[in-house]
Amino acid sequence: MSMSDSPLTHFDASGQAHMVDVGAKAQTHRIAIAQGRISMQPATFELVRHGSPKKGDVLGVARLAGIMGAKRTADLIPLCHPIALTRVTVEFELLEAEQAVLCRASAETVGPTGVEMEALTAVNCALLTIYDMCKAADRGMVISDLRLLEKHGGKSGSFVSP
Amino acid sequence: MSMSDSPLTHFDASGQAHMVDVGAKAQTHRIAIAQGRISMQPATFELVRHGSPKKGDVLGVARLAGIMGAKRTADLIPLCHPIALTRVTVEFELLEAEQAVLCRASAETVGPTGVEMEALTAVNCALLTIYDMCKAADRGMVISDLRLLEKHGGKSGSFVSP
Amino acid sequence: MSMSDSPLTHFDASGQAHMVDVGAKAQTHRIAIAQGRISMQPATFELVRHGSPKKGDVLGVARLAGIMGAKRTADLIPLCHPIALTRVTVEFELLEAEQAVLCRASAETVGPTGVEMEALTAVNCALLTIYDMCKAADRGMVISDLRLLEKHGGKSGSFVSP
Amino acid sequence: MSMSDSPLTHFDASGQAHMVDVGAKAQTHRIAIAQGRISMQPATFELVRHGSPKKGDVLGVARLAGIMGAKRTADLIPLCHPIALTRVTVEFELLEAEQAVLCRASAETVGPTGVEMEALTAVNCALLTIYDMCKAADRGMVISDLRLLEKHGGKSGSFVSP
Amino acid sequence: MSMSDSPLTHFDASGQAHMVDVGAKAQTHRIAIAQGRISMQPATFELVRHGSPKKGDVLGVARLAGIMGAKRTADLIPLCHPIALTRVTVEFELLEAEQAVLCRASAETVGPTGVEMEALTAVNCALLTIYDMCKAADRGMVISDLRLLEKHGGKSGSFVSP
Amino acid sequence: MSMSDSPLTHFDASGQAHMVDVGAKAQTHRIAIAQGRISMQPATFELVRHGSPKKGDVLGVARLAGIMGAKRTADLIPLCHPIALTRVTVEFELLEAEQAVLCRASAETVGPTGVEMEALTAVNCALLTIYDMCKAADRGMVISDLRLLEKHGGKSGSFVSP
Repeated sequence: MSMSDSPLTHFDASGQAHMVDVGAKAQTHRIAIAQGRISMQPATFELVRHGSPKKGDVLGVARLAGIMGAKRTADLIPLCHPIALTRVTVEFELLEAEQAVLCRASAETVGPTGVEMEALTAVNCALLTIYDMCKAADRGMVISDLRLLEKHGGKSGSFVSP
Repeated sequence: MSMSDSPLTHFDASGQAHMVDVGAKAQTHRIAIAQGRISMQPATFELVRHGSPKKGDVLGVARLAGIMGAKRTADLIPLCHPIALTRVTVEFELLEAEQAVLCRASAETVGPTGVEMEALTAVNCALLTIYDMCKAADRGMVISDLRLLEKHGGKSGSFVSP
Repeated sequence: MSMSDSPLTHFDASGQAHMVDVGAKAQTHRIAIAQGRISMQPATFELVRHGSPKKGDVLGVARLAGIMGAKRTADLIPLCHPIALTRVTVEFELLEAEQAVLCRASAETVGPTGVEMEALTAVNCALLTIYDMCKAADRGMVISDLRLLEKHGGKSGSFVSP
Repeated sequence: MSMSDSPLTHFDASGQAHMVDVGAKAQTHRIAIAQGRISMQPATFELVRHGSPKKGDVLGVARLAGIMGAKRTADLIPLCHPIALTRVTVEFELLEAEQAVLCRASAETVGPTGVEMEALTAVNCALLTIYDMCKAADRGMVISDLRLLEKHGGKSGSFVSP
Repeated sequence: MSMSDSPLTHFDASGQAHMVDVGAKAQTHRIAIAQGRISMQPATFELVRHGSPKKGDVLGVARLAGIMGAKRTADLIPLCHPIALTRVTVEFELLEAEQAVLCRASAETVGPTGVEMEALTAVNCALLTIYDMCKAADRGMVISDLRLLEKHGGKSGSFVSP
Repeated sequence: MSMSDSPLTHFDASGQAHMVDVGAKAQTHRIAIAQGRISMQPATFELVRHGSPKKGDVLGVARLAGIMGAKRTADLIPLCHPIALTRVTVEFELLEAEQAVLCRASAETVGPTGVEMEALTAVNCALLTIYDMCKAADRGMVISDLRLLEKHGGKSGSFVSP
């Protein structure tokens, strides 16, 4: 297989990393939705569940960390393009049966390249912040199932996680 | 339970978020090791495995993203203290049976507070970068099992993941 | 009042913070002008007034801090959109009677959302820098009257401070 | 007055800006407390007062912006030293009579230089964030009375605002 | 010569620095190519030449630093506009006769202002990173001949270095 | 030569990049001085020479860019440690015979690792800013002779450029 056929688009024909050319791509509306979860001990789960401005709003802090993290994506991921995000949302769901917090984030832009990394980074920063805020109680929390749920817009079309 | 007994140390007695006082804590050597993995399709796994300066060194780029990400932790995690890291390492292992890449990162400092978040952020940024570099080939990759393996130094003593 | 009628547009219908959707808003020319002042002791005022490349150009440093600060707005204000600023200016006026420095900043873009926060952040960073540069002489300086003077462009129309 | 006697310590003897030498200063505990307020219309004040995770927690978001802003001080203020903050707090008080929100922030470190700018920046970022979150309802809000309340530690001794 | 005729466009008519207005300029494709070199001792040159994932890939690390540095240009150069880069490349050539590494970088955007500074910053960050990685062996390395090779797009037309 | 004997300390024994361990190194006073120059056409040189708050103070802006750039070094150079700088200075000299501006920067810290990269980055950012401010008049300016002049402190002892 010659390099020019390689699906590793972040490398040029001689295998060198580059920021790929998106200058000729259409300015279309693009959206990506990502998801992940963090599992914890039952007592930690209760602490998170009862968060409030009075008792300590873990998820409120994590939501902001996710939104702000999405804006830092191009600083963190070496070959990502800087993107003018037009919308970011971060939501949480308490999974009682699994003693886990599910985080789902969406990112949107109108531009020449997709926002998958922005949505994934938002989830990541939100989940890491939950870890940070609860770690004094529970250092064994585990982040898992972090992945892209769907993305739309752009030449490669839609992706919906099976 | 009164708030002052809460294990959510990132909130004060009235439940408000703050950056906790570490001014009186001892300046000790602190180390943390974190780990996570990213699973992918067999063809993607082959692309990563055969990375090289000629063909595109996915893991080399991801390693740098992890190291640089560790330095940005206090920018990303709202209540983290800025920390003068004295060492960061990021390693990968190819898990053939699971078609996954395992990432392990360590962070160290000599200071008044721990570096768990720095090690976790390093793993995170490294794995997200692998996702970014391979996503044109495989948007269904999944990051999982992201957690703290061990930490040493500091008043709360050592933690070793069971 | 239902949440969807709330003027707090930075929260969704369930009260959660989000970065609001500007993807469908028109790309128009937008400008905002903000202003603030810092009051000081007469001797400090003289130091600032006589600033020069030979004696220490306080206002020259503060102007740059304002311009550069405007570019960091989306890093600082959690729910602000990243914006491609097309112009930033920062001006000072010495208010002799009040022994104060007045700062006025303008920010402009062509895009889907306004630049009020960029103009306000520019003023803020400029005034804080004056404080920083003069604080060894005068720690009692006070910043006041920091507000939006006017903004134009966008669906909500013009605002001119009464 | 010769320049070497100038209280503008951020300039050298020939009037050029520099980051002053703190290498020989004692590593002492330093704390600074700053304060400011934002005035608004009665209806806006009610929106802020009734903030909650259900209705939109304006002050919760602003508190985080203040804490995170303190960590960015050396990025924003040109001649500030980078500082390893050991503690940051941000508090709000609702001033009913004035229809204003008072913000008070403290910053601490153990190091060779003071943290006045960090405390002031925290207040600033918190108040600007309140402006941002309420501006759709009230563009005429005014930030005022932003100043240092007190600082302790360091060779120049304590300062307490009269 | 009146100031309005000055070629120093970064200053207004009264000589004050500002971020110039590009709001009315055409959104055109713009590209800039810059170049520079770093000279070193023969033994250091051999270390760089034989870089590989096994022995330490100096140029791979430097390439990433260049690409990421281009994205930080507006943070570093006070009066630069933030720019949505659409492409960045960084290449190296080993100049055997001169015992030097030549770095060439290109930056592209579709927008109202040029990307000369982004290309130059990419070269700079790449060469500084080579210095950093080899400095334990050779502190006498010298960076030279850093300049713009060509730029195209925009009202001022093309520039090609003679 | 085995890797463990390699002078490329930024790579571990298997050739992987890492941030080297400085945790056990002595906290000593460290200083580095770097230098570089930018050559320009005679007319451009005159513009820079006559800079003033009235006509546009190119060197004043460039000095600040250098100082602020030094603080961003660990963000730009992938394997650099974050460093608490205690002092930064940036000076310029007009080289009439060569129609060039010479920039010299010093950086200092009290810590476990050197500040060569901080001094070099300061020079770099200052010279690039001169380029930016004068480029409308002269795109052919060339940066050269950028190198470390001397460094002191630390186990490897002093280096003075021959």
